[in-house]
Amino acid sequence: MTIQIRKLDSRQPDFQETLDALLAFEASTDEAIEQAVTGIIAQVRARGDEAVLEYTNRFDRIPNGGAQSMAAFDIPQQELDAALAALPEKQRLALQTAAERIRLFHERQKQELQGFSYTEADGTVLGQRVTPLDRVGIYVPGGKAAYPSSVLMNAVPARVAGVQEIIMVVPTPDGVKNQMVLAAAAIAGVTRVISIGGAQAVAALAYGTETIQPVDKIVGPGNAYVASAKRRVFGTVGIDMIAGPSEILVICDGSTDPDWVAMDLFSQAEHDELAQAILLCPDADYIAKVEASIAKLLPAMPRQDVIRTSLTDRGALIQVRDMAEACAIANSIAAEHLEISAENPQQWAEQIRHAGAMFLGRFSSESLGDYCCGPNHVLPTSRTARFSSPLGVYDFQKRSSVIQVSEAGAQTLGKVAAELAYGEGLQAHARSAELRLKQGV
Amino acid sequence: MTIQIRKLDSRQPDFQETLDALLAFEASTDEAIEQAVTGIIAQVRARGDEAVLEYTNRFDRIPNGGAQSMAAFDIPQQELDAALAALPEKQRLALQTAAERIRLFHERQKQELQGFSYTEADGTVLGQRVTPLDRVGIYVPGGKAAYPSSVLMNAVPARVAGVQEIIMVVPTPDGVKNQMVLAAAAIAGVTRVISIGGAQAVAALAYGTETIQPVDKIVGPGNAYVASAKRRVFGTVGIDMIAGPSEILVICDGSTDPDWVAMDLFSQAEHDELAQAILLCPDADYIAKVEASIAKLLPAMPRQDVIRTSLTDRGALIQVRDMAEACAIANSIAAEHLEISAENPQQWAEQIRHAGAMFLGRFSSESLGDYCCGPNHVLPTSRTARFSSPLGVYDFQKRSSVIQVSEAGAQTLGKVAAELAYGEGLQAHARSAELRLKQGV
Repeated sequence: MTIQIRKLDSRQPDFQETLDALLAFEASTDEAIEQAVTGIIAQVRARGDEAVLEYTNRFDRIPNGGAQSMAAFDIPQQELDAALAALPEKQRLALQTAAERIRLFHERQKQELQGFSYTEADGTVLGQRVTPLDRVGIYVPGGKAAYPSSVLMNAVPARVAGVQEIIMVVPTPDGVKNQMVLAAAAIAGVTRVISIGGAQAVAALAYGTETIQPVDKIVGPGNAYVASAKRRVFGTVGIDMIAGPSEILVICDGSTDPDWVAMDLFSQAEHDELAQAILLCPDADYIAKVEASIAKLLPAMPRQDVIRTSLTDRGALIQVRDMAEACAIANSIAAEHLEISAENPQQWAEQIRHAGAMFLGRFSSESLGDYCCGPNHVLPTSRTARFSSPLGVYDFQKRSSVIQVSEAGAQTLGKVAAELAYGEGLQAHARSAELRLKQGV
Repeated sequence: MTIQIRKLDSRQPDFQETLDALLAFEASTDEAIEQAVTGIIAQVRARGDEAVLEYTNRFDRIPNGGAQSMAAFDIPQQELDAALAALPEKQRLALQTAAERIRLFHERQKQELQGFSYTEADGTVLGQRVTPLDRVGIYVPGGKAAYPSSVLMNAVPARVAGVQEIIMVVPTPDGVKNQMVLAAAAIAGVTRVISIGGAQAVAALAYGTETIQPVDKIVGPGNAYVASAKRRVFGTVGIDMIAGPSEILVICDGSTDPDWVAMDLFSQAEHDELAQAILLCPDADYIAKVEASIAKLLPAMPRQDVIRTSLTDRGALIQVRDMAEACAIANSIAAEHLEISAENPQQWAEQIRHAGAMFLGRFSSESLGDYCCGPNHVLPTSRTARFSSPLGVYDFQKRSSVIQVSEAGAQTLGKVAAELAYGEGLQAHARSAELRLKQGV
């Protein structure tokens, strides 16, 4: 079975239109899911543990007639530690190496955001305090798409931020636990693991139940039910972004082994049929070589069906006029992952304004970043890199302004505030400022 | 007309329950508004300027038969400058002083977030870049609730962040322009002002029209239509928080002039009937004094009806066991504005984990912070200070990870990544890493 991947040329008159259509992705809303989630959340708010227990037994097909109480869903620390100890040594070491590198990178983020304070001439002190969230929930999907790397990427930044309670929920369909996920929880410093999932787990984390304290923020990926539930509890708790399909954009100058670029495109495409993998290159001959590599390498890939669908439906090999145009197009795409596989990649990186993560040079394959470089693999998708950032320590911190006005400061600031408050028709604001004036007004 | 303000005591057995009920606020969703907004957004996406023009002429009752084209809604720079020049001198100076102080505080925020980069022993470079958004939209309400201070608080941080295009939309019901708002736009460095509003303005900013370039983020307060529209375009663009009613929590040790505290409570209560003003104090006699001050000062307030309703429905004077308990309660309330009106306020501030802004000491009235201290007055409401921050320069910036793996780095990282990728069943990820190994696998 061959593969036909779309080839575009930026010189074509309809290029922009074609590209826009290719990039367009709007998450559809399934009314049945929305209604189901509304019901589940209402039940969990009204009946707490009882509802969570019922839904979990039913949806996750908990064996032996289901669990009798919520306590059965708590996975104790010893079980996490045992899962870690039982991993093959190479896997355990790889997980520990990845966690340590992720921690190191995120410590830099923490160092950068320390808050500040300064004192003005009249003694007035102004500042900003940075404090961690008290308690967060991390959603980890169960079943096939259970990724230990995601446990690390979500939990380690929370831990570095100083969050005291990190509650991980992970469903165990048919009662089956993913040992590598439990091991990752042990390494990442998760403080409690509960084997529940779905909208019922999101509702329990957001509103609390008899056995689960409500959290301040919920992060982590999930299916359509989980995404819908997160949207609905937003405001009561914080949430991370609702992620769209994963994307890679490779800018290549035509000097990288075409097999490498083909495999990099595969590594995104294998995630799911909706994933998007695009190559931008000024060299038509090189594009043909990548196309040949794709055809050659695809049959050996275990996930070739997913890759083929993704590349056929949403992929593209695009010939551009030059590398500068490639950078301009990359800015309009604002990709989740951007590889600049080129000589002296820094010169092109300087022209990039929007990307979730940039991978510079031929050796920086996205897959290294997905697992163990250190930066987070939870990144803004669907052009949201125009205005949002990778998941980071800052997502588990918040700022408070600190204002301590001196008596002298109140004299000058009070007049300014009163003038503006009267201008806005807010007289109590004005009087509140004026009462602090020595020569009362 | 007297006022009855709720008095609570933390020693009462049902105190926590009563407090929770008092704090509870859930924004109701009006189905008619939701449907209207869905229709408006669909029309603007389909028909662009034509739809915006029609809606604006109709909803804002534009006189003389309405505007003929979108060009009529653009307010030129000269008109902004003229509005500023025409202000009474005291008002103009107050506005300029406030803007300059806001700029200075937000410059500190910018200095704090510079990004970072570090090189590992094998030559691998890891870092984080911080870049401004390209283009943002600032929504400013028209009519009665038009606040020039909000123009400054939203636009100045965007300007400091380095946003190149700051598009302000402000409806002009009956064609009436608020001169102080236009003057604030001139001072704040807004790059374009369009006199449109409502859901149609939000849709135009999010999706663009023939005459309006789509923005990357929309910030600023608005009515229920605007809030609904912002929720709906979220994802296509970034938005700030959807604000709930404003809140003040005053912790007082009983040594501040009770008139000052009463007026501080008023200054929040006068915003709207749903605003919440609460006092925590360990001294029953002092609470009685504040109550007397409230009764004494209220009749002189032009907005006394709003204040009375707000204090009666949602306000409270709460006697606590001691100042430490006041701080614990404050953490559970996570107020938008927290005044610590006490001797040596720093000792209590250290016990506060959650607050949008803290005002320390008797001279730090919230009203000073609302206008001219420098920190932002756009703050998290409805307990969201547990997980979110004041509006700031960081809301107009985003981060990108930068990963440049050296050839040597790819050898060690590649093995770790491949091990984990195989463990997750993502073979293309593994192969992509392995292809970079010298001793190819």
